[in-house]
Amino acid sequence: MSMVCLSDFEAYAKKYLPKIAWDYFAAGADDCTTRDENILAYKRIRFQPRMLRDVSVMDIRTKILGSEISFPVGIAPTGFHQLAWPDGEKSTARAARAMNTCYIASTYSTCTLEEISAAAPGGLRWFQLYIHRNRAASQQLVRRAEALGFQGLVLTADLPYTGKRCDDVRNGFRLPPHMKVKNLEGAFEVCKMSPLDPSVTWNDIYWLQSLTRLPIIIKGILTREDAELAVRHGVQGIIVSNHGGRQLDEGPATIDALVEVVEAVRGRVEVYVDGGVRKGSDVLKALALGAKCVFIGRPALWGLAYKGEEGLQDVLRILQDEFRLSMALAGCASVSEIGQHLVQSSKL
Amino acid sequence: MSMVCLSDFEAYAKKYLPKIAWDYFAAGADDCTTRDENILAYKRIRFQPRMLRDVSVMDIRTKILGSEISFPVGIAPTGFHQLAWPDGEKSTARAARAMNTCYIASTYSTCTLEEISAAAPGGLRWFQLYIHRNRAASQQLVRRAEALGFQGLVLTADLPYTGKRCDDVRNGFRLPPHMKVKNLEGAFEVCKMSPLDPSVTWNDIYWLQSLTRLPIIIKGILTREDAELAVRHGVQGIIVSNHGGRQLDEGPATIDALVEVVEAVRGRVEVYVDGGVRKGSDVLKALALGAKCVFIGRPALWGLAYKGEEGLQDVLRILQDEFRLSMALAGCASVSEIGQHLVQSSKL
Amino acid sequence: MSMVCLSDFEAYAKKYLPKIAWDYFAAGADDCTTRDENILAYKRIRFQPRMLRDVSVMDIRTKILGSEISFPVGIAPTGFHQLAWPDGEKSTARAARAMNTCYIASTYSTCTLEEISAAAPGGLRWFQLYIHRNRAASQQLVRRAEALGFQGLVLTADLPYTGKRCDDVRNGFRLPPHMKVKNLEGAFEVCKMSPLDPSVTWNDIYWLQSLTRLPIIIKGILTREDAELAVRHGVQGIIVSNHGGRQLDEGPATIDALVEVVEAVRGRVEVYVDGGVRKGSDVLKALALGAKCVFIGRPALWGLAYKGEEGLQDVLRILQDEFRLSMALAGCASVSEIGQHLVQSSKL
Amino acid sequence: MSMVCLSDFEAYAKKYLPKIAWDYFAAGADDCTTRDENILAYKRIRFQPRMLRDVSVMDIRTKILGSEISFPVGIAPTGFHQLAWPDGEKSTARAARAMNTCYIASTYSTCTLEEISAAAPGGLRWFQLYIHRNRAASQQLVRRAEALGFQGLVLTADLPYTGKRCDDVRNGFRLPPHMKVKNLEGAFEVCKMSPLDPSVTWNDIYWLQSLTRLPIIIKGILTREDAELAVRHGVQGIIVSNHGGRQLDEGPATIDALVEVVEAVRGRVEVYVDGGVRKGSDVLKALALGAKCVFIGRPALWGLAYKGEEGLQDVLRILQDEFRLSMALAGCASVSEIGQHLVQSSKL
Repeated sequence: MSMVCLSDFEAYAKKYLPKIAWDYFAAGADDCTTRDENILAYKRIRFQPRMLRDVSVMDIRTKILGSEISFPVGIAPTGFHQLAWPDGEKSTARAARAMNTCYIASTYSTCTLEEISAAAPGGLRWFQLYIHRNRAASQQLVRRAEALGFQGLVLTADLPYTGKRCDDVRNGFRLPPHMKVKNLEGAFEVCKMSPLDPSVTWNDIYWLQSLTRLPIIIKGILTREDAELAVRHGVQGIIVSNHGGRQLDEGPATIDALVEVVEAVRGRVEVYVDGGVRKGSDVLKALALGAKCVFIGRPALWGLAYKGEEGLQDVLRILQDEFRLSMALAGCASVSEIGQHLVQSSKL
Repeated sequence: MSMVCLSDFEAYAKKYLPKIAWDYFAAGADDCTTRDENILAYKRIRFQPRMLRDVSVMDIRTKILGSEISFPVGIAPTGFHQLAWPDGEKSTARAARAMNTCYIASTYSTCTLEEISAAAPGGLRWFQLYIHRNRAASQQLVRRAEALGFQGLVLTADLPYTGKRCDDVRNGFRLPPHMKVKNLEGAFEVCKMSPLDPSVTWNDIYWLQSLTRLPIIIKGILTREDAELAVRHGVQGIIVSNHGGRQLDEGPATIDALVEVVEAVRGRVEVYVDGGVRKGSDVLKALALGAKCVFIGRPALWGLAYKGEEGLQDVLRILQDEFRLSMALAGCASVSEIGQHLVQSSKL
Repeated sequence: MSMVCLSDFEAYAKKYLPKIAWDYFAAGADDCTTRDENILAYKRIRFQPRMLRDVSVMDIRTKILGSEISFPVGIAPTGFHQLAWPDGEKSTARAARAMNTCYIASTYSTCTLEEISAAAPGGLRWFQLYIHRNRAASQQLVRRAEALGFQGLVLTADLPYTGKRCDDVRNGFRLPPHMKVKNLEGAFEVCKMSPLDPSVTWNDIYWLQSLTRLPIIIKGILTREDAELAVRHGVQGIIVSNHGGRQLDEGPATIDALVEVVEAVRGRVEVYVDGGVRKGSDVLKALALGAKCVFIGRPALWGLAYKGEEGLQDVLRILQDEFRLSMALAGCASVSEIGQHLVQSSKL
Repeated sequence: MSMVCLSDFEAYAKKYLPKIAWDYFAAGADDCTTRDENILAYKRIRFQPRMLRDVSVMDIRTKILGSEISFPVGIAPTGFHQLAWPDGEKSTARAARAMNTCYIASTYSTCTLEEISAAAPGGLRWFQLYIHRNRAASQQLVRRAEALGFQGLVLTADLPYTGKRCDDVRNGFRLPPHMKVKNLEGAFEVCKMSPLDPSVTWNDIYWLQSLTRLPIIIKGILTREDAELAVRHGVQGIIVSNHGGRQLDEGPATIDALVEVVEAVRGRVEVYVDGGVRKGSDVLKALALGAKCVFIGRPALWGLAYKGEEGLQDVLRILQDEFRLSMALAGCASVSEIGQHLVQSSKL
């Protein structure tokens, strides 16, 4: 089987993963409209490519919050990587480091933060967290991440409750007994409710800031109003995200929401986007519309499912090659030359 | 079979109901364009969800014409419930009361108003009526409903003649001999024409008002002009409806018409909507666009077909859970926080 | 087989006609885009129905060029009716008279004008003609039609050459040897070219007017510019038509072109439309957009194919019933109440 | 098998060509969106045909850069014609001459320029070239073409690197050993990199101009900005092209880009278009939107695959007949009567 584009990895994962794991990764909320729209919205954007510009030397590096990465694609936080590959998040960390990009480790990892750090010392990593009813548990996680050299905290804002994912309900999805949400072990034994706190508000950003000197990136913003609030509450970055279409269905596709968020932010903080990135040209579109970097979720899991660390590197390398080629064919030799003039979108 | 969302009940009903009954409930006029558009139009509306608002305590109750219901979903008037479940409308009444919501009993019930009342004393119920050629028959029905404690009269305005539903014509649809339109028994023995009066005009609202002190809700309004006329003729409520797409085909989807009716009414009377509601998020969209409450037709019949009273409660409970979750994920903790800012629609 | 709507007749005709005849009647030019658009464009128009208007007495009659017809649907000119039914145009004439409507007999009839007249004396008929290279032949046809009591001349303007209908080319379509274009017998024996004259211009209308006192209706107009020219050259009526999508492919659907033609004409002459009418509600839409009457082509042939004169009457009766019901459900009791307010169209 | 329209030739080629050759000719970049959009965009344009204009004498000739051709369709440069037919580009040259139109021979021909010239002396031909890292090689090609009587140089601007065509990657596409890119033989033996120079800029146009007195036509322009640059750098013609959708995917369809290029150029140089032309009416649309001529790529290859020189003539003859008929049915007797008034396009 020759792996030429990301859909080859998707087909592989669908074929070889246990159905319950595939369904969990693939799941969208309700009718999966937003999950699918994330992809379709990219296809509605048209390039306006420029010709005869010297593209003999291509520079696709960028920086996020001051750290250089080899190209503007990082790994979005997703849970339960052991469902895809035995070594789980350790493989993810190694692949991200090998490709010199950023990996956002999820609270719902099946390896501990410590194991992730040890697997790939020196890699650029951010830590994704929820605010728990038990604030001490959140505080402890922040401290551990900071101590382990994670360089950013990604606060997920769109999950006061878990979205309705019908396949997971039908499958009665739960982790197999030999896997654990290791980061949280022991923290919630008495708690029967969801450990996540639905009473969180913008003021809790201040609380988080009081715990750490790490930059805070807020994930799950979809409107200009919330973008403005995020900036005013002092976050360093915004990830435009709808949780891969797994939370509120029938909200905007992220690439569409990006335009209004970038407009509202006016360069005051960095804006990233996840959801629906399947080709290097999608990355180019997101950057043209103002994203500093994109993050991939499901494609990273397909890479893991294919060959663990090596498979994820394959996925990243394909995206890198496609991104470089798209840039060149659109007439850009470096990331700094990418701008809104490259695209036509009904959202502009 | 696990019942996770309303389409599970639809699939069940399609499989287990006699074809002639399924066809009758499913029927739309002509090409069924409007029936299907009612659903598709909801899908075209996009949420603009807000994050980090305290949604730990959710209040989904509302009031219609002064009566509190547990959430803004009632049962629309549909005929012949015994085709779906042996106890017919008695089961419907019990389920609505158990879920603390409003049931609009149809003139074309297979149980009498008296049986419906006795089955669930104290439940919130409105009575749907047509104006008959034989006005005495209509008058008698109004009096009975008022005496039995029905709290509203719903006048159906869109059926001067019955729409052309091809499957019913092909099936030669008629009630099985052991079922009767009991409310009308004896009233029309001599009459060979349709008992409904196609000469009804707005002035007949005055006649109705002279018969009863019950509030009058007019059902079947789709334009700003008729909404204005309804307000001027003193109705207390408007149900934006196209009869589930069973009358004039290729009119507007009800959720689209809602916007123009709400605009015209400017808060002077309550506006409701039926048609196409299949998910809790549809309810949220309707409320965001100005509806005070929605009513479900076919989904209630699927619930009855599944397990009678219990099945209908399942349907209502799923809608309730979905509505609550959608509200929370959109950033609303109570119905009063729902507003037009939550949605993007080409009709706004 | 129960014949409930026009598509039942279409299915019958497709099943029972010889393939070569079905293909000929069904054919559209090139990719058949315009043929299909004629139908789809109707579906894009939405009604805005009005309620509670007295529709107990329905009057669906109208007048075209001063003659009353039972409802605003006539028979468009189509060729070769014997391909559909042995009696050919004689059956068509009888059915049109029985339903008290107008039949436009085609030059390419398989019966003579004389046979058509004799088959249904007193029926309202117009005669469709082309202008031939041999003007004497055209002149003779006009004289014959006038002498036989035809009450209008329909000049087809959109066929300087025959459109490219791929199925006819593949089938090598030609009339079976026992059928003849009887009206033209003898007229073109020497002529090897197409008998139609592609040099015809607007001035030829004056020539036609010099031959006859019959009103002239021009068929095949699709733009405001040509509508204006038609009025200025003194025609009495315009049929907005694209020849059922059989001539230039990818022009406008007729119902879309109707809007611009009606606007340009400003009531100076009557405007009719053909193409894509499949339901009574299509007729209502066409009238709401300014047509005085519609003409049906293929559906008439399906009716003939089903049961000759009787089948065509069935088709007309179904359209009549559907039109009456649509009018009532939209709130109109007579044709004079139909107006643009009834519809929403992107062309308005 | 009767060859009625171009899709018949496509079906033939797909059936009879070796899969690897079919895939190579059919290939689009990435998701093939742009390849397919080239065709779909034509279908979105609607004619506004005019009636009763004298179209008895049709003149479909035009001139490109001063040379008369029999109708406004030439042969676009495509590589490797021997994959379609043993005689390769020699057959193409003969067919183009026989039909009195222009053939743009590709650098990547499987016959030499000398063989092409000798096959059809006196035919109107342009030569397509890339600028190579080895400028001497490019210079030599220009000199050879000029010496052989080619009358224009077509510089391809959209291939600094080759697009990602997944099927070619999967097939491991390469020329069979008995075929050669003969024009380049010997020129690049040492070179392991792609021979094409991705550092080319607009200034290289000046270099080309210094080598030759032939007119220079630039191919691959899609934006108003690049059109303006092309004019300012002194080219004589622009081919609006996206390389048949084989380079950057998800750019504009060429017929859509044509409108903005024509607007920017304001008649200062001739504008042509390729990509997506499948019918004579497409040619009419392109001319109505301002193209002086269109060029066909894949359809020419299908013609070759069918019967070599004769098959390509069939393809051209069908296009010619369809173009003439479309013109007549739209009311134009000569190419000079074609204008923007003939079409409706959302791009206008």
